[in-house]
Amino acid sequence: MSTKLWVIKIGGNIIDHPEGLSRFLERFSYLKGNKILVHGGGKIATRMAADLGIEAKLVAGRRITDEAMLRVVTMVYAGLTNKQLVAELQSHRCNAIGLSGADGNAIKAVKRPVKEIDYGFVGDILPNSVDADAIATLLENDFVPVFSAITHDGHGQLLNTNADTIASALAVALSARYLTSLVYCFEKQGVLRDINDETSVIPEIRAGEFEQLKESGIIADGMVPKLHNAFDAIAKGVSEVCIGHADDLHLLREQQFGTRMVR
Amino acid sequence: MSTKLWVIKIGGNIIDHPEGLSRFLERFSYLKGNKILVHGGGKIATRMAADLGIEAKLVAGRRITDEAMLRVVTMVYAGLTNKQLVAELQSHRCNAIGLSGADGNAIKAVKRPVKEIDYGFVGDILPNSVDADAIATLLENDFVPVFSAITHDGHGQLLNTNADTIASALAVALSARYLTSLVYCFEKQGVLRDINDETSVIPEIRAGEFEQLKESGIIADGMVPKLHNAFDAIAKGVSEVCIGHADDLHLLREQQFGTRMVR
Repeated sequence: MSTKLWVIKIGGNIIDHPEGLSRFLERFSYLKGNKILVHGGGKIATRMAADLGIEAKLVAGRRITDEAMLRVVTMVYAGLTNKQLVAELQSHRCNAIGLSGADGNAIKAVKRPVKEIDYGFVGDILPNSVDADAIATLLENDFVPVFSAITHDGHGQLLNTNADTIASALAVALSARYLTSLVYCFEKQGVLRDINDETSVIPEIRAGEFEQLKESGIIADGMVPKLHNAFDAIAKGVSEVCIGHADDLHLLREQQFGTRMVR
Repeated sequence: MSTKLWVIKIGGNIIDHPEGLSRFLERFSYLKGNKILVHGGGKIATRMAADLGIEAKLVAGRRITDEAMLRVVTMVYAGLTNKQLVAELQSHRCNAIGLSGADGNAIKAVKRPVKEIDYGFVGDILPNSVDADAIATLLENDFVPVFSAITHDGHGQLLNTNADTIASALAVALSARYLTSLVYCFEKQGVLRDINDETSVIPEIRAGEFEQLKESGIIADGMVPKLHNAFDAIAKGVSEVCIGHADDLHLLREQQFGTRMVR
């Protein structure tokens, strides 16, 4: 259980900036050990849908994935973005293999049940949805899986799935056989003590400190669910969850990368 | 060297007909032994390009893959079509894994040199372009590779590549370690003795008979380069090349499928 695994997620705003993306991919290539990349979507899918005359559907402020939009996100995430990332990683001699959840049956999901809102072709990941054996086989054969945020239901239906959730589900499932770090790269330096001061990064948060930071208002808004999910992953076996700037990826191994969350 | 491998290619006109495609995928799933699927494009990419206002560029009657068209074919072939095929195969418990040539560095190509015509981002496959080790690793771990006709140059550039050529290059490269059959599925019953009679399928053609059939005019037009490539693959180590109707795939193992070309 001492073999190290990095599960690294990059968000849409990294995908959308070619220079920053190239810098990230080079640093990702240099990272030693078993690793998995999970990428979000970015604005290309929204632009592509607009160019195709497909309107983004919203119900009660929530995005809906209808059939036309599912085709667009499958094309853009699993096709264009995924293959461009793989080709660029290969140019750095990183043996990337691009996957959706359908490939090798790696990640199954269920179409989100309709309650107040019908989200359309959106997939929720259940416990035991990840085929850890299949992914471990790829890792042991020196492939570097690169996941787009598309899954399937096992009955032929592709599903649009949240990339953060995919990264977390992969890390949890693989933590039974690897010492797994889950890393979220975004456009900030980490969890900030003062949201207006980029230098006020909190280097480490222990599970027991989370409630207190929340109550004091230091951790608020969008950061609350992110950290909640982080500590949930840790409770389910992930060694650490790190959150920081994509440019700082090379600082990961020295534990100098953004904010580190531990048990 | 006695382990069997099927490399099966389906063309665009199969991709374009959902019912026939589903029938084919079910039969492909039932086919026993190691297998690889290679798929062409179909009309979806052409329609998608038109919907996006991208004009199909032709120079001297030849299709050109400019940057805009490369994005479209990458989205459609490696994204939409590839993932739909994989998800449907998975629903039949066939452990499909969708790949482009960039994935796992499986197939490298070189951008076609500009002579009279600049074809744009079109990739030509050189000898030794296929990483047979990587593909054999997937086969040995019970994955069923499903290739779209997109390759890369190893320097970060994706390239549009002919699907027939990809199928042939895969079969040749893997024939060093598997008893390899290369199978082209199309909308006819096989090579016909009389082009107007679908029942006049020639069951077997030996390499030595090819010239004679060509000279007598029985094999003409589009069939000549197809059969030329078939016998070239056989000369390079492939055991047999079969060409027949996608609906007849279940007849393959009993050698009742279309036309069989052998040494």
